[in-house]
Amino acid sequence: MSANPFDTLEQRDPAEREAALFAALVPLLQHARRHASAAAAQLDGIDLQSVRSRVELAKLPVVRKPELLQRQQAQRAQDPFGGFAAIGWGARAAAGEAALRVFQSPGPIYEPQGHHADHWRAARALHAAGFRAGDLVHNSFSYHLTPAGAMMEAGAHALGCTVLPGGVGQTELQLQAIVDLRPDGYVGTPSFLKILLDKAGEGGLPIASMRKALVSGEALPAALRERFTAHGIAAYQCYATADLGLIAYETPAREGLVIDEGVIVEIVRPGTGDPVADGEVGEVVVTTLNADYPLIRFGTGDLSAVLPGPCPTGRTNTRIRGWLGRADQTTKVRGMFVQPAQVARIAERHPQVRRARLVVSGEVGNDRMTLRAEVACAEEGLVERLIETIRDVTKLRGEVELLSPGSLPNDGKVIEDTRPVA
Amino acid sequence: MSANPFDTLEQRDPAEREAALFAALVPLLQHARRHASAAAAQLDGIDLQSVRSRVELAKLPVVRKPELLQRQQAQRAQDPFGGFAAIGWGARAAAGEAALRVFQSPGPIYEPQGHHADHWRAARALHAAGFRAGDLVHNSFSYHLTPAGAMMEAGAHALGCTVLPGGVGQTELQLQAIVDLRPDGYVGTPSFLKILLDKAGEGGLPIASMRKALVSGEALPAALRERFTAHGIAAYQCYATADLGLIAYETPAREGLVIDEGVIVEIVRPGTGDPVADGEVGEVVVTTLNADYPLIRFGTGDLSAVLPGPCPTGRTNTRIRGWLGRADQTTKVRGMFVQPAQVARIAERHPQVRRARLVVSGEVGNDRMTLRAEVACAEEGLVERLIETIRDVTKLRGEVELLSPGSLPNDGKVIEDTRPVA
Repeated sequence: MSANPFDTLEQRDPAEREAALFAALVPLLQHARRHASAAAAQLDGIDLQSVRSRVELAKLPVVRKPELLQRQQAQRAQDPFGGFAAIGWGARAAAGEAALRVFQSPGPIYEPQGHHADHWRAARALHAAGFRAGDLVHNSFSYHLTPAGAMMEAGAHALGCTVLPGGVGQTELQLQAIVDLRPDGYVGTPSFLKILLDKAGEGGLPIASMRKALVSGEALPAALRERFTAHGIAAYQCYATADLGLIAYETPAREGLVIDEGVIVEIVRPGTGDPVADGEVGEVVVTTLNADYPLIRFGTGDLSAVLPGPCPTGRTNTRIRGWLGRADQTTKVRGMFVQPAQVARIAERHPQVRRARLVVSGEVGNDRMTLRAEVACAEEGLVERLIETIRDVTKLRGEVELLSPGSLPNDGKVIEDTRPVA
Repeated sequence: MSANPFDTLEQRDPAEREAALFAALVPLLQHARRHASAAAAQLDGIDLQSVRSRVELAKLPVVRKPELLQRQQAQRAQDPFGGFAAIGWGARAAAGEAALRVFQSPGPIYEPQGHHADHWRAARALHAAGFRAGDLVHNSFSYHLTPAGAMMEAGAHALGCTVLPGGVGQTELQLQAIVDLRPDGYVGTPSFLKILLDKAGEGGLPIASMRKALVSGEALPAALRERFTAHGIAAYQCYATADLGLIAYETPAREGLVIDEGVIVEIVRPGTGDPVADGEVGEVVVTTLNADYPLIRFGTGDLSAVLPGPCPTGRTNTRIRGWLGRADQTTKVRGMFVQPAQVARIAERHPQVRRARLVVSGEVGNDRMTLRAEVACAEEGLVERLIETIRDVTKLRGEVELLSPGSLPNDGKVIEDTRPVA
């Protein structure tokens, strides 16, 4: 399979990549501590020079979206970015740290765009999907409030593509533009591409110029991908978020998603900052090497897992399996919130416990909570002590079931709520 | 009144400006002839070196929107810009003439955006409205398909502003962004600013951070402007089109609109390419000194007039009165189209006629057509000869009324249709 890399970074020796990423990390952390107050709080008391490996990185606290939102809300009057960004406007712009744009994502959470080209690093994903200089890209992501449209456009511009900013809706006008301008490819959600193809089919409109697509924002079911293929469109997925930009992207090998070269990705046990073993499902935690918006160990709330082995296209970076669910499994039992971090705390107090999952069953008003814990050898009294710890940590009564190692499914679930939806 | 110019161009000696514009025009015409086939057709047989003054410029044919649309439709498969743009994608991008974006305006007409910062020159209008580096600009123009959002954003970025791309609709979310981010100013239509102010008032939301606004896209009635002022918002207008970008802008003097430094503006008799006398109402014809999209004597279809005298802010460029109506007064009489160009042709054949206006009255099925012609001294038989020319040019019977010079109103109307709307 032709590798056709975007740049020389993609085919680096993995050890060389690891060294380069961690060599870039230390100055990034120093910069973040100086220019972003939330990062300074996160890195408080840490010897940054020591953060030279994944083992050291894993000692830093994870920041999750609720904390980001909370800091933004608390500091709104002084800094709408809650101390996470190193750029802004007003006084910050005067200091030469001007943001190009500010976006609003649901929350509302605000994200800055820096002055550097391809701020979100989308060019690599577009390139893997076949986009090249000189192409016309039909961009059906929104440019309004949220950054998806701008994110893809910045990547397309970095590649030397021309972009038609289609946005969302106005299907008839967008179809007209596709018929008239004959774009080389599509960028947007898979469902809107389906709508365009359906409408074009109904009207007998010629839109065969589009031979490739980079889709994101929702799942791409295999049947839909095959439908695109039948229309002559090779559709590739990428995994990106408003805060972090590109995290991983699909390649012509179509085996999972290859991690982007501008981020350090870890998979951790939900509710903790502890990396899981390769292949185990956990929360995707990302550190971006972006000096303008340096998010450090940012918990995406998404579940995924490392896909072992190298990408057949010659890209040497680690692959992940794509989106496998939400990591924030917080639920309510008898009026009390129960959070993944609490399950982690229970397990921590009993070193014999390797993995644990709290299963909530029954129905509201008659809930049952059972901790299913994997242990190698169950010493006497462990069940009773675990029940005590459950009560101590959650303020709730719970049962305990001991399992042999490897019994729990590899699905990243720390809390499993089996109650019928009200 | 403080002048506070955007650059040194605004306060140039008018003669110096005129010399600079025409010095730039000749190479622009040469470039356009080489790289834009529609311009080559327009300039066919013309000695470009001779186009060194308004008198010479007035000899070039005017291009109007219907011709632009027609050329785009005819050449769609080869060149969606119809030969008017010097940039594109594909082969053109390979030649280093890549467009950054393509936009679709009603028609559909397609417009390119070049790689140069501030392609549409909006920064000057934003500056005159009080926007400065470090400001946060809330941009409520659409970024989708049409270029208004991108146009204002490019100008704001050229000034060093940060932009929140609000787009159209989603009023609640846009209001939330204004409350949270406290932008310095607003860019968008006046009617959407009114909606935002009304909704903020209903909800008791604090949006007093916005102290200035650049509005466009529709009229700004004096009452609405005063309402903005009462809210502490100084609102300024600008006149821009999707094809040409900024044409003229309001200044703190609030006396008409000052012409932008990057265009040559003429006011011509509707249906012709003949400049009217200063102060007379006619069609705004614009030549942009934009090598990427060099529109030469482009008839906007808008009526305006030169406002005599200099701008009290020290800006020395000519002022125009703003939008005074549509120049395309084509109408249908007894099943036949009658166009402003035909009225001009009738007058041309009789040098005694100084100005003429065709008045269509009665009602459909019983129309009456009267040519009202200003003449200094009416020689014998002129009325009969004019009736004959009317029939020759329009294939329709018409009456003639002779008037003394200065009798016709100064409103740019060449065809006045007084019939009741069906």
